[in-house]
Amino acid sequence: MNIVVVGSVAFDNVETPFGKVENVLGGSATFFSVAASFFAPVSIVAVVGKDFPKADLEFLKSRGIDTEGIEIAEGRTFRWTGRYHEDMNLRDTLDLQLNVFAEFQPKVPASYRDADICFLSTIHPSLQKSVLGQIGKPKLVGADTMTHWIQETRAELVPLLADVEMLTVNDEEAKLLSGERNIVLAARKILAMGPKSLLIKRGEYGVLHFSGDSIFAVPAFPLEQVFDPTGAGDAFAGGLIGHLAKTGDFSIKNVRRAIVYGSVMASFVVEDFSLNRLRKIDDGDVEKRYRQFVALTEF
Amino acid sequence: MNIVVVGSVAFDNVETPFGKVENVLGGSATFFSVAASFFAPVSIVAVVGKDFPKADLEFLKSRGIDTEGIEIAEGRTFRWTGRYHEDMNLRDTLDLQLNVFAEFQPKVPASYRDADICFLSTIHPSLQKSVLGQIGKPKLVGADTMTHWIQETRAELVPLLADVEMLTVNDEEAKLLSGERNIVLAARKILAMGPKSLLIKRGEYGVLHFSGDSIFAVPAFPLEQVFDPTGAGDAFAGGLIGHLAKTGDFSIKNVRRAIVYGSVMASFVVEDFSLNRLRKIDDGDVEKRYRQFVALTEF
Repeated sequence: MNIVVVGSVAFDNVETPFGKVENVLGGSATFFSVAASFFAPVSIVAVVGKDFPKADLEFLKSRGIDTEGIEIAEGRTFRWTGRYHEDMNLRDTLDLQLNVFAEFQPKVPASYRDADICFLSTIHPSLQKSVLGQIGKPKLVGADTMTHWIQETRAELVPLLADVEMLTVNDEEAKLLSGERNIVLAARKILAMGPKSLLIKRGEYGVLHFSGDSIFAVPAFPLEQVFDPTGAGDAFAGGLIGHLAKTGDFSIKNVRRAIVYGSVMASFVVEDFSLNRLRKIDDGDVEKRYRQFVALTEF
Repeated sequence: MNIVVVGSVAFDNVETPFGKVENVLGGSATFFSVAASFFAPVSIVAVVGKDFPKADLEFLKSRGIDTEGIEIAEGRTFRWTGRYHEDMNLRDTLDLQLNVFAEFQPKVPASYRDADICFLSTIHPSLQKSVLGQIGKPKLVGADTMTHWIQETRAELVPLLADVEMLTVNDEEAKLLSGERNIVLAARKILAMGPKSLLIKRGEYGVLHFSGDSIFAVPAFPLEQVFDPTGAGDAFAGGLIGHLAKTGDFSIKNVRRAIVYGSVMASFVVEDFSLNRLRKIDDGDVEKRYRQFVALTEF
């Protein structure tokens, strides 16, 4: 199966307790698509500015990613500047320059419209809806969102959830969206809004998955150094959706395996800045870490 | 195999977002021993005051717990008053009255001295050492500690760790004891101090276990209501050590199962104040929740 993802392709300035980088490749669609490309064909819908380097587009293409849907607009590419605390579960956004993203009107190329799976990364829900409307009839729709959209665009976000099978949020977003502080009650409320499957990302503590009566919990991979958490959630979604596309099997059992593959991809991303770690690994590394997850959790 | 535990038998005043109780049975040795009693014979070394109700001693005996080593001293029983935040991973100690515990000199009854397993709950490391010295040659020594002892009695605590096979701490204590903020590096440093096995308790996020090259992670049971976390760590240790005593098998594989039984007992304790939930469950409930842990984690 093939995947279309809409989201940001951006430059990041990131500071962590371990170092600092400027103008590195980032963005939710970037992390998602590179992670997913280890499993299945993926196409991006996004916008960048004239300043976006050809080398970065070439990198995406070298991963087999279809970049036809990346519009190159007059102006500068979206830029995010963030700093992580000593406790890297916390971060501050220091600067956000939407640039060409401010006027983004996603246009899905004709060749993308028969996509099997559509993933809506965290952008304005009206843009998520627009993309979904341009895709024929995907077999699976996944979506991500964040605090900002839950607070500012709830009236547009909530109706969209009726068309989403698989929603990914973090702990805080789940509590905000549901109004419940207990995570199990929060999950039940969000499932009642439409999604059949809810993934709650908990950073270094792993992921909880709720679907019907099934609850699945997988820890994050314990790493000696978490270098930069940026993109971990997007790479998680990429690995998850990628494995589902590769196998075409949406059963609960296979969704659980997909969640572990998502966790595998997230565990690689945080080992270095930007996509540096994903540039260096191969399918063998992915399988090896999947087996390490088995060893980590079996009893 | 049989177990001796030394620790506190106390009265708690507890306030959580869900309610408030006063003068309820608590204490580390109490939670530990009642949880362990579902699996194996357990004997307590502790001190209470003349105010300690006979009914509470009778309750412990009704669980098959040997209370010969609970000294009844002149004065009042240890009292702890705490309040949990909305985020129940956080709590404040509002009041602490050591009372008879201030002068506690543990005396291990002769009948306890051939114990197979000795568990040293979180008390002053010199008292932990004294108890260990009074037990013959246990096959397994487990210990718990806390921030206060790490900060105030490091010089006595660290040498004791050379005699401890299995240490339980929480995230914060692991970081404090090791001086490392990364949990994997923290674990490696603590293992180098002596323990063969290290358990890091992470509240609602579960437990990490480090032993040699093995890392095991198990989530906490996702509950719709965490009523009162008091005693969860002690009940965890009780279930863990209890299962090891019941089976007599200290292999890594069985330690992992024991960790899940520990997590099962902790998940019951937090469902109500004090030991209320443990008073109501039976072996069938324990096995049922163990199977729920399998369903929660298998992929």
